[in-house]
Amino acid sequence: MSSPSADLAVVGGGQLARMMQQAAVGLGIHIRLLAEGPDVSAAQVIPDHRVGDHTSLDDLRDLAAGVPVITFDHEHVPPEHLRALEAEGHACRPGPHALLFAQDKGAMRARLDELGVPCPRHASVSSLADLEAFGFPAVVKTTRGGYDGKGVWFVHSAADAEEALSSDRELIAEELVDFRRELSALVARRPSGDTVAWPVVESRQVDGVCKEVVAPAPDLDDHLAQEAEAIARTIASALDVTGVLAVELFETSDGRLLVNELAMRPHNTGHWTIDGAATSQFENHLRAVLDRPLGPAGPRAPWSVMVNILGGSVDDLEAQLSVVLDAVADIRVHLYGKSVKAGRKVGHVTAVGDDLDDAQARARRAADLFEKGTTHE
Amino acid sequence: MSSPSADLAVVGGGQLARMMQQAAVGLGIHIRLLAEGPDVSAAQVIPDHRVGDHTSLDDLRDLAAGVPVITFDHEHVPPEHLRALEAEGHACRPGPHALLFAQDKGAMRARLDELGVPCPRHASVSSLADLEAFGFPAVVKTTRGGYDGKGVWFVHSAADAEEALSSDRELIAEELVDFRRELSALVARRPSGDTVAWPVVESRQVDGVCKEVVAPAPDLDDHLAQEAEAIARTIASALDVTGVLAVELFETSDGRLLVNELAMRPHNTGHWTIDGAATSQFENHLRAVLDRPLGPAGPRAPWSVMVNILGGSVDDLEAQLSVVLDAVADIRVHLYGKSVKAGRKVGHVTAVGDDLDDAQARARRAADLFEKGTTHE
Repeated sequence: MSSPSADLAVVGGGQLARMMQQAAVGLGIHIRLLAEGPDVSAAQVIPDHRVGDHTSLDDLRDLAAGVPVITFDHEHVPPEHLRALEAEGHACRPGPHALLFAQDKGAMRARLDELGVPCPRHASVSSLADLEAFGFPAVVKTTRGGYDGKGVWFVHSAADAEEALSSDRELIAEELVDFRRELSALVARRPSGDTVAWPVVESRQVDGVCKEVVAPAPDLDDHLAQEAEAIARTIASALDVTGVLAVELFETSDGRLLVNELAMRPHNTGHWTIDGAATSQFENHLRAVLDRPLGPAGPRAPWSVMVNILGGSVDDLEAQLSVVLDAVADIRVHLYGKSVKAGRKVGHVTAVGDDLDDAQARARRAADLFEKGTTHE
Repeated sequence: MSSPSADLAVVGGGQLARMMQQAAVGLGIHIRLLAEGPDVSAAQVIPDHRVGDHTSLDDLRDLAAGVPVITFDHEHVPPEHLRALEAEGHACRPGPHALLFAQDKGAMRARLDELGVPCPRHASVSSLADLEAFGFPAVVKTTRGGYDGKGVWFVHSAADAEEALSSDRELIAEELVDFRRELSALVARRPSGDTVAWPVVESRQVDGVCKEVVAPAPDLDDHLAQEAEAIARTIASALDVTGVLAVELFETSDGRLLVNELAMRPHNTGHWTIDGAATSQFENHLRAVLDRPLGPAGPRAPWSVMVNILGGSVDDLEAQLSVVLDAVADIRVHLYGKSVKAGRKVGHVTAVGDDLDDAQARARRAADLFEKGTTHE
């Protein structure tokens, strides 16, 4: 029998940890999970899980006991706990020195400025006077804790700024970028520095939430694709990121790239890699954090289209599966084992193929059927 | 939180159940497992498992309580237990009426004869006189319980027959087929009858154990490929198989096909489909036994080569993983979480690509490194 000792501790039981487990099964990697509850997405599929609080150092120590490496489903573990775990001999990947820049948008902007990485114009703001000095329109963000459109305000005048400024959190103002579209550059990096880059993708948001990803980004100029990849490699290296790094970018209307956000974990804009790339982001994340050689990140088909399934009017996704598979013959389905709530990410579908329009139509149709029980057509 | 009720009961905790779980995670299917021990291959990755004996009706009933459908990692559940479970309202897929023909080679040959499916010449034998009447050389097999070369004797003369005839089991004699190679035709069939067929593959055995599979079978005449697929569809339909059916075939030196063996579960000759087909045999097995629409079974690349990892001189496969991934850049690794014993199937690797020789070289090199720690080159 195999040893019951774990190879890797994962903090957080969401769908990212769940999809890490699918990759771990193939590689024979034993994951030990810290889950928010006994039935959360990843706890359903990882036998060696315990329920605990990622803000409790005791719970983190209990998780990590005897496990050499720790990685994360999210970016919300307090940095001081990560430093404590490192001092006790565990490798945190990514480490707190890197993760800081995914946790704190102020620190991220300052560091990217130092590196010469192009960003939207930005300034720390704490008052209406600061904001008026920055100028309208502006995007105001909490420096910590925002995600999927939360903690973000679009401010066109002093009157719009009230809610943002009434928050007692640190804020950063950024210019409202005039962009053609959003792109994402995804890389995986080992502690040794070895890095692989997946093709740059286009990411389409609805209400601040990623809805659709097309890989590779259609009609992207070669020099922009190369620049996006170079930006991701520069950031991964300079910030000493280990594991997957996602760099979300604006492609501006005048043909420049500006960094929007960073994530240091497998990312929604990389879910297409499970079905569409030679090695998935989840497998390469595991290989990277365990310091094993990385797999090739090239595409397996000319086009991959991933569409998120956001909670809608269909309550029983597993029952709906038959309807979807009947209606859309060639579709890869990924359900996260989550109960349906309005707008919640409960799964995704990916279509791959030689024809972009066809793949997109299949993926959208399948997601529509999971969300609404019917299609727009 | 999702309901803790299981969608599917799986009997047997080997690598086939483990790989079913990888597919189940994506589809949001909850598997409940009956495992031979707490740490067997599939129990490591299926949280909802219990340890029990597949020959105990009580253990099977405990597993199946509240679960509508039961499927199998192996063919060794006593048929009378399956009939009892069916009488109690559970759907066994495949059912005992079908599974009989994978459990009993005598019954299988008789039924295939009725169907006009080409088989090697064969006869039931229980004495040396029977065997002499059949003629030498012959392959003598126990009608039940043999696998991977066990329960099979190659008999060239009366002297060779002693061990086989001294067994107290039912025996069947078959002609020693003069074959070019072995093929395998794999289909998945729903209770409704809908069936999909993967490309026919070539399977290469060493000492009676599958070592390497090439998909599709190189240089296979179209009419033989069609005949092999038609044979598999005929058997699946006539025997009312639900789930995956593998039909192992001889391609004779004079260009005919003869059925060698049947398996009614995901099969070693279909492991390439995880990485090389639009839908894997494990996913379509789940979809078939749960009566959901089947996915397309076409190839994702011109060539896929799967090589089994058989236990050799390397004890720690997980430690060896880095060596393998370093030496062979583009390889898909599947480890089963099993301790290494000489000749035991402990994993497999698959290489896909446009060039057969290259894919074969990569897969063989990776398997060699897992088995011997080094390559022959």
